[in-house]
Amino acid sequence: MLQKSLNSFFKPKNIAIIGVSKNPQKLGTQILQNILNAKFQGDIIAINPKHAGEKLLNQPCLAQVSDHHESFDLVVMVIPAKFSENIINDCIKNKTKNIIIISAGFGEVGNHELENKITQKCANHNINILGPNCLGVIFPYANLNASFADGYPQKGNICFVSQSGAFCTAILDWAHEKKLGFSHFISLGNKSDISEDQILATLQDDDNVEIFAFYLESIKNGSKFIELIQKISSKKPIIILEPGSSAKAAEASASHTGSLAPNHKVLQAAYKAAGAIQVRSMRDMFSVIKLLSYYKQENFGKNCAVLTNAGGVGVLTSDLIEDANLILPELSQSTQQALKQVLPAEANTKNPIDIIGDAKADRYENSLKILTTAPEIDEILVLLTPQAVTEVEKTAKLISTYKLKTNKPIIACFVGGTKIRPALKIFNENQIPSFRFPEEGLDAITKIVHRNQNKICQTFPHNNRNTEKLTKILIRNKNKTALCAADVQHFLDTYDIDSPQTLNFNPNNWQDALEFSQDFFPKKLVGKLISQELLHKTDQKGVILSIQSTEKLEMMWKHFQDIITKNNLTDAKIQLQEQIDSGLEIITGISSDKNFGKILLFGTGGIYTEIWQDTSLRVLPVCNQQCFKNMISETKIGQILAGTRGQIFPLEKVYQTLEKIQQLILDFPQIASIDCNPILITEKRVICVDMKIILKN
Amino acid sequence: MLQKSLNSFFKPKNIAIIGVSKNPQKLGTQILQNILNAKFQGDIIAINPKHAGEKLLNQPCLAQVSDHHESFDLVVMVIPAKFSENIINDCIKNKTKNIIIISAGFGEVGNHELENKITQKCANHNINILGPNCLGVIFPYANLNASFADGYPQKGNICFVSQSGAFCTAILDWAHEKKLGFSHFISLGNKSDISEDQILATLQDDDNVEIFAFYLESIKNGSKFIELIQKISSKKPIIILEPGSSAKAAEASASHTGSLAPNHKVLQAAYKAAGAIQVRSMRDMFSVIKLLSYYKQENFGKNCAVLTNAGGVGVLTSDLIEDANLILPELSQSTQQALKQVLPAEANTKNPIDIIGDAKADRYENSLKILTTAPEIDEILVLLTPQAVTEVEKTAKLISTYKLKTNKPIIACFVGGTKIRPALKIFNENQIPSFRFPEEGLDAITKIVHRNQNKICQTFPHNNRNTEKLTKILIRNKNKTALCAADVQHFLDTYDIDSPQTLNFNPNNWQDALEFSQDFFPKKLVGKLISQELLHKTDQKGVILSIQSTEKLEMMWKHFQDIITKNNLTDAKIQLQEQIDSGLEIITGISSDKNFGKILLFGTGGIYTEIWQDTSLRVLPVCNQQCFKNMISETKIGQILAGTRGQIFPLEKVYQTLEKIQQLILDFPQIASIDCNPILITEKRVICVDMKIILKN
Repeated sequence: MLQKSLNSFFKPKNIAIIGVSKNPQKLGTQILQNILNAKFQGDIIAINPKHAGEKLLNQPCLAQVSDHHESFDLVVMVIPAKFSENIINDCIKNKTKNIIIISAGFGEVGNHELENKITQKCANHNINILGPNCLGVIFPYANLNASFADGYPQKGNICFVSQSGAFCTAILDWAHEKKLGFSHFISLGNKSDISEDQILATLQDDDNVEIFAFYLESIKNGSKFIELIQKISSKKPIIILEPGSSAKAAEASASHTGSLAPNHKVLQAAYKAAGAIQVRSMRDMFSVIKLLSYYKQENFGKNCAVLTNAGGVGVLTSDLIEDANLILPELSQSTQQALKQVLPAEANTKNPIDIIGDAKADRYENSLKILTTAPEIDEILVLLTPQAVTEVEKTAKLISTYKLKTNKPIIACFVGGTKIRPALKIFNENQIPSFRFPEEGLDAITKIVHRNQNKICQTFPHNNRNTEKLTKILIRNKNKTALCAADVQHFLDTYDIDSPQTLNFNPNNWQDALEFSQDFFPKKLVGKLISQELLHKTDQKGVILSIQSTEKLEMMWKHFQDIITKNNLTDAKIQLQEQIDSGLEIITGISSDKNFGKILLFGTGGIYTEIWQDTSLRVLPVCNQQCFKNMISETKIGQILAGTRGQIFPLEKVYQTLEKIQQLILDFPQIASIDCNPILITEKRVICVDMKIILKN
Repeated sequence: MLQKSLNSFFKPKNIAIIGVSKNPQKLGTQILQNILNAKFQGDIIAINPKHAGEKLLNQPCLAQVSDHHESFDLVVMVIPAKFSENIINDCIKNKTKNIIIISAGFGEVGNHELENKITQKCANHNINILGPNCLGVIFPYANLNASFADGYPQKGNICFVSQSGAFCTAILDWAHEKKLGFSHFISLGNKSDISEDQILATLQDDDNVEIFAFYLESIKNGSKFIELIQKISSKKPIIILEPGSSAKAAEASASHTGSLAPNHKVLQAAYKAAGAIQVRSMRDMFSVIKLLSYYKQENFGKNCAVLTNAGGVGVLTSDLIEDANLILPELSQSTQQALKQVLPAEANTKNPIDIIGDAKADRYENSLKILTTAPEIDEILVLLTPQAVTEVEKTAKLISTYKLKTNKPIIACFVGGTKIRPALKIFNENQIPSFRFPEEGLDAITKIVHRNQNKICQTFPHNNRNTEKLTKILIRNKNKTALCAADVQHFLDTYDIDSPQTLNFNPNNWQDALEFSQDFFPKKLVGKLISQELLHKTDQKGVILSIQSTEKLEMMWKHFQDIITKNNLTDAKIQLQEQIDSGLEIITGISSDKNFGKILLFGTGGIYTEIWQDTSLRVLPVCNQQCFKNMISETKIGQILAGTRGQIFPLEKVYQTLEKIQQLILDFPQIASIDCNPILITEKRVICVDMKIILKN
């Protein structure tokens, strides 16, 4: 299926509104009024059979859509759900291109049948639907307000898309106060047709859009959406708020990898890998929007300068910068010298820069002039408390002039109440992001900086191993859920993944076992009795540990032979396996997600892996060793592996092992998941002690 | 030294202001104006030799303090530092009781000599000093504003004490906007005399004070301050903001326990144990003050109900409640039934309660009526977004009426901009804590709830062991920094702390060693060659591991005898010690802090202990096993010990071990610190493998 066109949806030439009446309280009438207020330039037709031929709000009124002499680019429907089917039929007759269904009463109240029916009908006639059960849309550059939102935003660079109507009204009201502008304002409703990915695809090259912000309770075409984000996110920031992760976190899962990587975490990993900026709350979303509406994402970095007229507040902010994982860089000698020349002797020219309590606007100005050109600084946080001689408004105005002089983000944080209020207004008018408290701005900066640091994988690995034998194994096991240990071993061997040395012997073949053991001792062996007929090995002492002598090996052999005889086992083998006594335990695994395909997990392994929760996730494929390195470095076990405590671990081999496991699962789509826990890391080896391979079925 | 009296400081009968002139811009004149504006009821005398006999701002002016016919309760000094000594002499002549030194130019610019001199002089004549280098004080109930703060707060229940003047002006301005009132407003300055502990001691029983809030860059009498907090905090909340912990965290320390417990963490542990509410930023302090100014701390609890007219915002808030470690409790059947009767069918009567987008004020009212009496709920978060029919102001007014009807905290969070502003004003006027975003209120609730849950230790342990021999060991070692292993063993034995079984043998006494080993095998032994003359044991193979047979023991013995002969060692002993191969590794240790005495640390042990940073701290003494239990449960290793993964550990023995180590250090003040890393926890034992005892010197 080709990507359908939403061009006429975003730039309609004419509009019909179904559900307008003489009652100004009616939603349909309100929407018509909003359309008129926004000065839409094309034809506007009211539809109401009771008033056909009359004028409603000065607009011509027709009995039905199909009475119009040309087809409509956009029809807005505000009538009870039960009438919707007839209306759709009429729209088909008119060759309408797009319908916004404002009305509720569909899928959201369980009426899926009706919703599916009209959706299908429209799809058959190439009609796009937004909604049902939505607030409508506002496209300021098209002078279009086809919504019942109580307010009209100014033109701006934000494309805001929300699955919640209430969220729309809150952000509209907030943006009005902050004087933030929008390019598009879209309430998605039930998403019976138009969804987030189609909007992103259509508007990605729209010059009016510089930021995308999504509030999404679900996503419709996960892979497609992520692919688009990956393509667009480094040019235009994409902010995503996904509610309900606490509830989603409760979803249980059987495997280690699965329980450590529930769906919402997978989604987060996918967003992250694609370069989206994920936020956790409305406040975070508002803060990030505020910063990115005024400054480009690439201008933000880790290094914050703090300029303050109150030493204590500067120190408090240093704490918060550390909390936010940002850096308070030392200022260069030349920056400090320059500051010394414009500041009084008692001022502190180290970061945080304290221009002290009697600072007037000029002292802020002189410092800003120097800081905006200091290369060691990415952004400047300007703090102010209203003291005796402080010039609140003048300082605010002066800071605002720097908006045009530099690309370096300047973030204002004036702390107080009544006295600083005029400054906030000045900042809003002059597009300086301002916050009531430093942490709000800092948390938002961190989110942007993390995005910038996150390398997006673009290249893909490929395989040159001979996997014919493995394919046969999978065919043979196609009705099973998991592979047996012997079959798993073939995978480990083919992919050259280190595992404990293992040999299986016929119980009658003592001599071979003896010979093997003589070369092996004094290293330790584990003896195992392998038999499908014998369940619960450990109950019947089918595992003997720490065999280091011929004497003990012989004891073991006799013991197993006794069990074989007593239980009349016909399929028994005796396995001798290298015993690995110690090493760092890591876990790695790959699980399948219906939206994003394969997900790789890495972290602290062993039986306490769920308690430590020391893991990181990536959506596969991961393209190179640096990506694996980043992934590993996000965990505490990664710090240990990096040799923080002076020990040496074969880190390269860890990357290689992850790469091999990734390759394995990419080569065999019939594998649903892989769980390796633990993988033991010794000084020289990365040994996969236990790998489980679960098949799709 | 008796606690000196600050009564006349808080309730002066008369005041002199030194540094008033005819220039209204002068700080001294401004302060006199502030005193007059606040309608102080006692005598007010201006001091200025140039205007003696005249009137300044209508107040009598004298040449010097001692010209007054009676002594002053309070003198406010606003003259350059260099004149201060003469003025103090004059105050002594007048028998002045209290001096506020507003002027700067003392210790804060390095002029410690002058500051110490005048401080000592005043101390000799029982004169209290506030400052120098401060903003002054405001005591609304005494109609006193002896400050140059630009604003006068209304009467209220907050005693605010700050070591930063700029912080004072910020909070004053903020409180003005929020309509919060103060009982006392004190700028501490350099704290040459009056400090936080004296203020707390004096005002603890003042009926006007219901909340103490401190901004403290340092503390003067740590133990005294903590003792007072411990006494007062359950009756009156004590909020503390300590800036600069990020810089303080960088302080290096040699021992494990020391580096994991830097000073600021110790201070935090002390505040916590005493029941203070610690905040991290101005925003947090403002939020907690707002909640506690309107509701009693004991009324807050873990269980939040969320009432919202926007489902999505409710779900987002559920995430934030989880983030804040609070609970969204399930509502009882009867609560849900009651809600169903007053809400439309589409509403969600589960928590978060969604009264849906068309809710008007009455729907909020009807729900609140039910929720305020629901026993499963501690506090109610009322969310609102301004939708088409939302009655913002009416709803705000109605919520406000519940302030008088219930003790259950109601926290309002109206999300938006311009439209919700009138509601914020209504909340401020009606003492309903309101926040622009839910997380701000939730974080503050968490801080209060944590305080409520934290049991304050009141009883103290005592010892009945025979410690005579240990005292002798300490006397013998009094010039050393650390005890040797043999001496440490005596402490372990006396306090019945489990450690690996150990015996030392004379190198000639093979027979005894052999006999001992026969009973011990097949368990493993470690052999060690012990000699003060032989350094670097491991270099010369002075440690042999995993001895399990007579053969290996004999090899070891001969090897050690060779070393003894070759190095001509005269003091050598051969030690045989039980080898403990595996177990959970914990760390515990006690370090000394100059302010708070002994600090106990517990956490994940082993060589990676600094990476995991999985520790908790307590100020000693800790009174009972429940306290140790709480301490342990704060860590991840504590979850493992509690058997989360189905294993059994001797948890009681862990508590007992901590208790014994605490007792040990309480019994011997000459011990500076103890480091036990690791302590190995096996299925049945808690074995202290390595204990270091460091002495004071």
